[in-house]
Amino acid sequence: MASTGEYKRDSNYITDRITADGDDWPVEAGRYRLVVSRACPWASRAVIVRRLLGLESVLSMGIAGPTHDERSWTFDLDPDGRDPVLGIERLQEAFFARFPDYPRGITVPAVVDVPSGQVVTNDYAQITLDLSTEWTAFHRPGAPSLYPKELRDEIDEINDVVFRDVNNGVYRAGFASSQSAYEDAYGPLFSRLDWLSARLSSQRYLVGDTITEADIRLFTTLVRFDPVYHGHFKCNRSKLTELPVLWAYVRDLYQTPGFGDTVDFDHIKRHYYVVHTSINPTQIVPVGPELSGWLLPHGREALGGRPFGDGTPPPPPPADEVVPASHQP
Amino acid sequence: MASTGEYKRDSNYITDRITADGDDWPVEAGRYRLVVSRACPWASRAVIVRRLLGLESVLSMGIAGPTHDERSWTFDLDPDGRDPVLGIERLQEAFFARFPDYPRGITVPAVVDVPSGQVVTNDYAQITLDLSTEWTAFHRPGAPSLYPKELRDEIDEINDVVFRDVNNGVYRAGFASSQSAYEDAYGPLFSRLDWLSARLSSQRYLVGDTITEADIRLFTTLVRFDPVYHGHFKCNRSKLTELPVLWAYVRDLYQTPGFGDTVDFDHIKRHYYVVHTSINPTQIVPVGPELSGWLLPHGREALGGRPFGDGTPPPPPPADEVVPASHQP
Repeated sequence: MASTGEYKRDSNYITDRITADGDDWPVEAGRYRLVVSRACPWASRAVIVRRLLGLESVLSMGIAGPTHDERSWTFDLDPDGRDPVLGIERLQEAFFARFPDYPRGITVPAVVDVPSGQVVTNDYAQITLDLSTEWTAFHRPGAPSLYPKELRDEIDEINDVVFRDVNNGVYRAGFASSQSAYEDAYGPLFSRLDWLSARLSSQRYLVGDTITEADIRLFTTLVRFDPVYHGHFKCNRSKLTELPVLWAYVRDLYQTPGFGDTVDFDHIKRHYYVVHTSINPTQIVPVGPELSGWLLPHGREALGGRPFGDGTPPPPPPADEVVPASHQP
Repeated sequence: MASTGEYKRDSNYITDRITADGDDWPVEAGRYRLVVSRACPWASRAVIVRRLLGLESVLSMGIAGPTHDERSWTFDLDPDGRDPVLGIERLQEAFFARFPDYPRGITVPAVVDVPSGQVVTNDYAQITLDLSTEWTAFHRPGAPSLYPKELRDEIDEINDVVFRDVNNGVYRAGFASSQSAYEDAYGPLFSRLDWLSARLSSQRYLVGDTITEADIRLFTTLVRFDPVYHGHFKCNRSKLTELPVLWAYVRDLYQTPGFGDTVDFDHIKRHYYVVHTSINPTQIVPVGPELSGWLLPHGREALGGRPFGDGTPPPPPPADEVVPASHQP
């Protein structure tokens, strides 16, 4: 924390990239494992992109439990508390395999090189772009173009302001340690949500007429808004359910294959409310909010748009990656 | 706290009563001072009843600040931090004047005998009933009958379940120290709100066709629901704004003279978020929720009902009791 009470995200990541023609880390089927938590909005971007592009069979996925201690995400959902492919109990082990004295946070998403057990990258913003642009040889037939060349400038521009005011804005509000730092985040957050509402009132998706990386990045924050950011992070001018355009927009995405089928509301709530003892010392997890609204008609088809462009929706997730029904609306 | 993590309200109060024919504490103009906080739902009942009955000129009111320490509510809103009538800085002094070793909580509302400086009673449930039934000689012309004889059984019955599940239910949820104790309060709270919604869908007020004590007791909890109980106390199945019947009902009351003009949303939020460090250690006070909706048309006139029966609305509050505009919608 800075002395003003402002929350500063440590944005130093391991920035190695897995690329189509890479020397160190070439794209290769079966070589890497994507480690995520379904609780985490940054990891959930990669979960969705991997689903939409149909990379499940070439890039396996390890799912850490929703809660963790100061040190690391852990594989406590797996039998014996060990990731079945990497054989480790704590994601920390893969970071230390790469850098024995790794000094920063153990974060998800992380892509791990299975043969060496080393983390290749935890640079979440680059990971999804590379899945779209470097892993093309393994995209499923009908995979959408989530980061098309001709729209990149516009996508990048949207991503920048959405990151600053929304994706990271909710954290700046919730982790502020002074009233003024909190209010400095709250204002821009809701101004940006109003701006997004205006933009999305006449177009189905953020950029162009198909789903892009920009929609995925906004989605993973919005889907957590009422369950955690509204109360736990005090982002409470209104609930998302009270913002008609954004509420319809996020329901539209939620009901699109590859989005809602990756969302685990139980993991989301338990993570934030149990792990952040500095803002929720009782660790009690709210029962609400009521989730049935997520499945209501959204009416956004009327705006036109082609969700997958010239492509097709992904098939259902592999059986071992299905979110438990009790964790869904 | 009980060992199960359940919150138990200490309901031992000073139960002396001020009565029309009382020996010790007879009803008398100018003799007593009602000490309240506008933050407190229990005190706010008395503030509203006093307004509706027009007792302002015979029963003066001291207003404690919204925040307090472990020991006492304080008169920090007054010049020199001293109540101008009682001459004390802390409400505790009036309790100690009565019982030097008073061992329980220093609570509002409290009625203080001005000549002796002693608290007469802090028995909030009886205070409002006595204002209605014992202070009749001083009621304004046109004062409503808030606790009419022929409806008392029904009012008492409603008050009992509303107290258990709603008025105190939100505290049982918010102050629970275990997940199960929280959930034991959450379920009955929302079941009761659904039950109240059904009851109020076809009748304008809770009992009979006029405003009664039952409406006042429900109002002071509902008006705090979205600003504090929804987030701070984790009563988050839905906001009140998402429960159409109750949201219209509480807006109807809010817009009735004597209700909304007593409500200080700033005091309400600051009290809960600053005082309860065990559930909000940062003491950051949320900026939201947006309050403009409180002034929207409610449409409840269509249900009939006569707010004040054969009486009339109260005139505006005395100038020195007007809630600052910045603390209102």
